[in-house]
Amino acid sequence: MLKVPPHQVAGHEAVNGKLGPLVDESGRFYKPLQGDERGSNEVAFYISLSTNSGIPEHIQRFFPTFYGTQLIEASDGSGLKPHLVLEDLARGQVNPSIMDVKIGSRTWAPEASQKYIEKCLKKDRESSSLPLGFRISGLQIFRSKGLGFWKPGKKAAQKLSTEEVKLVLRRFVSSNTLNDLDLEPDCALASTVYGGSTGILSQLLELKAWFEDQTTYHFYSCSILVVFEKELALEGSNPGAQIKLIDFAHVYEGRGVIDHNFLGGLCSLIKFISEILTAPNECKTEVSAKDGQKNLINTDNGVVADQENFVNSGNGVVADQENLINSGNGVVADQKNLTSTDNGVS
Amino acid sequence: MLKVPPHQVAGHEAVNGKLGPLVDESGRFYKPLQGDERGSNEVAFYISLSTNSGIPEHIQRFFPTFYGTQLIEASDGSGLKPHLVLEDLARGQVNPSIMDVKIGSRTWAPEASQKYIEKCLKKDRESSSLPLGFRISGLQIFRSKGLGFWKPGKKAAQKLSTEEVKLVLRRFVSSNTLNDLDLEPDCALASTVYGGSTGILSQLLELKAWFEDQTTYHFYSCSILVVFEKELALEGSNPGAQIKLIDFAHVYEGRGVIDHNFLGGLCSLIKFISEILTAPNECKTEVSAKDGQKNLINTDNGVVADQENFVNSGNGVVADQENLINSGNGVVADQKNLTSTDNGVS
Repeated sequence: MLKVPPHQVAGHEAVNGKLGPLVDESGRFYKPLQGDERGSNEVAFYISLSTNSGIPEHIQRFFPTFYGTQLIEASDGSGLKPHLVLEDLARGQVNPSIMDVKIGSRTWAPEASQKYIEKCLKKDRESSSLPLGFRISGLQIFRSKGLGFWKPGKKAAQKLSTEEVKLVLRRFVSSNTLNDLDLEPDCALASTVYGGSTGILSQLLELKAWFEDQTTYHFYSCSILVVFEKELALEGSNPGAQIKLIDFAHVYEGRGVIDHNFLGGLCSLIKFISEILTAPNECKTEVSAKDGQKNLINTDNGVVADQENFVNSGNGVVADQENLINSGNGVVADQKNLTSTDNGVS
Repeated sequence: MLKVPPHQVAGHEAVNGKLGPLVDESGRFYKPLQGDERGSNEVAFYISLSTNSGIPEHIQRFFPTFYGTQLIEASDGSGLKPHLVLEDLARGQVNPSIMDVKIGSRTWAPEASQKYIEKCLKKDRESSSLPLGFRISGLQIFRSKGLGFWKPGKKAAQKLSTEEVKLVLRRFVSSNTLNDLDLEPDCALASTVYGGSTGILSQLLELKAWFEDQTTYHFYSCSILVVFEKELALEGSNPGAQIKLIDFAHVYEGRGVIDHNFLGGLCSLIKFISEILTAPNECKTEVSAKDGQKNLINTDNGVVADQENFVNSGNGVVADQENLINSGNGVVADQKNLTSTDNGVS
């Protein structure tokens, strides 16, 4: 039985009759092949990857397992469509905190079409990609069984300022996200999730070492997915923190040159995370400048809304959508009308 | 007594009544302040650098010493003009081999004006900056006292393909550049110049470690100058191989983010140089594909010409200039008429 992935944070979602990925109960993730060359590019990349004997095992583990392609009923009701069959990265996760970080200040290849370059360049300039070397394409942070997840709108997440990114990366590994979204995250889980010999930073550094050397692939518009189980971290167990590379519709041949664009962005992300580990307490002073947080305005239910349109799904989670839908607790906000009863932000 | 620097390989030159830098006999280099904000930016950077106590000594040595600004007679006869007073990096050099490598796939800051961004982006795309993460802005390779230097045209150097850059970086440390420009450079000086604990690669790696950490400055359109005395290397002495950072008219505040653009390009250059050290003999096979060398076409005097206009100064050195001037040995070439009597390239 195929269903909509419960923990998707970025990309097209298979909801409201739209085309999006599906998962089954055996742990497979079905991603619709994009009809143009992006679909064939991604298949070609996975085939190349699975037959490339030059990629060391400790790097292979950062890629989802590839099971080929398969015709299945598309989520939009359009009938049988070819899908990539991949490992379901959220398989077995109960309440995963997830962050999708699109790496690189440039999401377009030099070889891309002029039209595509212009489109991407505009988005790179409007988002944090250009200044920071990456953008957060989406995320969810587990709060509690009752409150569910904090899930900022995707459009807002992509445009975070430097200080806001620091705040989000700290909040991602903090325990004080229960009752409201604290502007002074405690970073209580930083050493467990980001730190340690198997933590996120170690994995990012392994990936970095590979990118300093490999000249086979250039990854444009590719993301690093960061996942861990917060409840396990809170109780002192291993939270299974891991990174995975995803989205390979814009991978090009490296032709003897390293992927300096991806590597630069990766090093920038590494620097942000290193700073949290070396100075977990500094967040309190750094994030006190509230005027730097225009993209993280709290609405009155303790969540964050895109400043354009959004849907409130009733469980304290807000996501950006084309149309305004209010299915839940009577809260409706738009860019001109952000009300707050909790913390005085309006 | 001020004179034109004898070993300038890139940038505006103080020849033919043009405005350019001058040097004196005490080892100072006078760079005319550009009239717009570029001049004041560069002064501001040098002042910031000289008062920034956070830059470690082993990194400070990669910057030219700054002696303030001074009004001196400009080289174009326009009277007293403000100049930056810097250390003359070629001071004491007899016949230095020099390479000016502009670092970064992007030479423009996100904060720059739209007009400037468009101009730079065009040049980055047309040159090797975008694909390689750097471009060679100019170079000279010492051949012998009789033959002087091999000095390819600047426009040609900036557009080198991956294979051509590999060839030039190998030729830079080869001994077999005497009689003709060998397409199979022997890399005889690679271990002396690029390698070793004080060689170019070690210095680049020190710089890289700093760029992975520093979030104070973002260097756009800045170059690494690579210099050594080939004659010393040939006789087994220390060739004084060193790198220096130059050109700071487009330095911006880092604001808590690493310079991922510079770092990515630097890592790309490091990879090219590492490959020469780990496989100095591979050049012979790699550069045999002559069709990859469209920007390094030999003219009949064994030098390389820009494919647009050029001046042949009579000493075997060819440089790009606005107008066609033939002052020497009767060789005139343009894009449609590249003749060769030596090696059959036409």
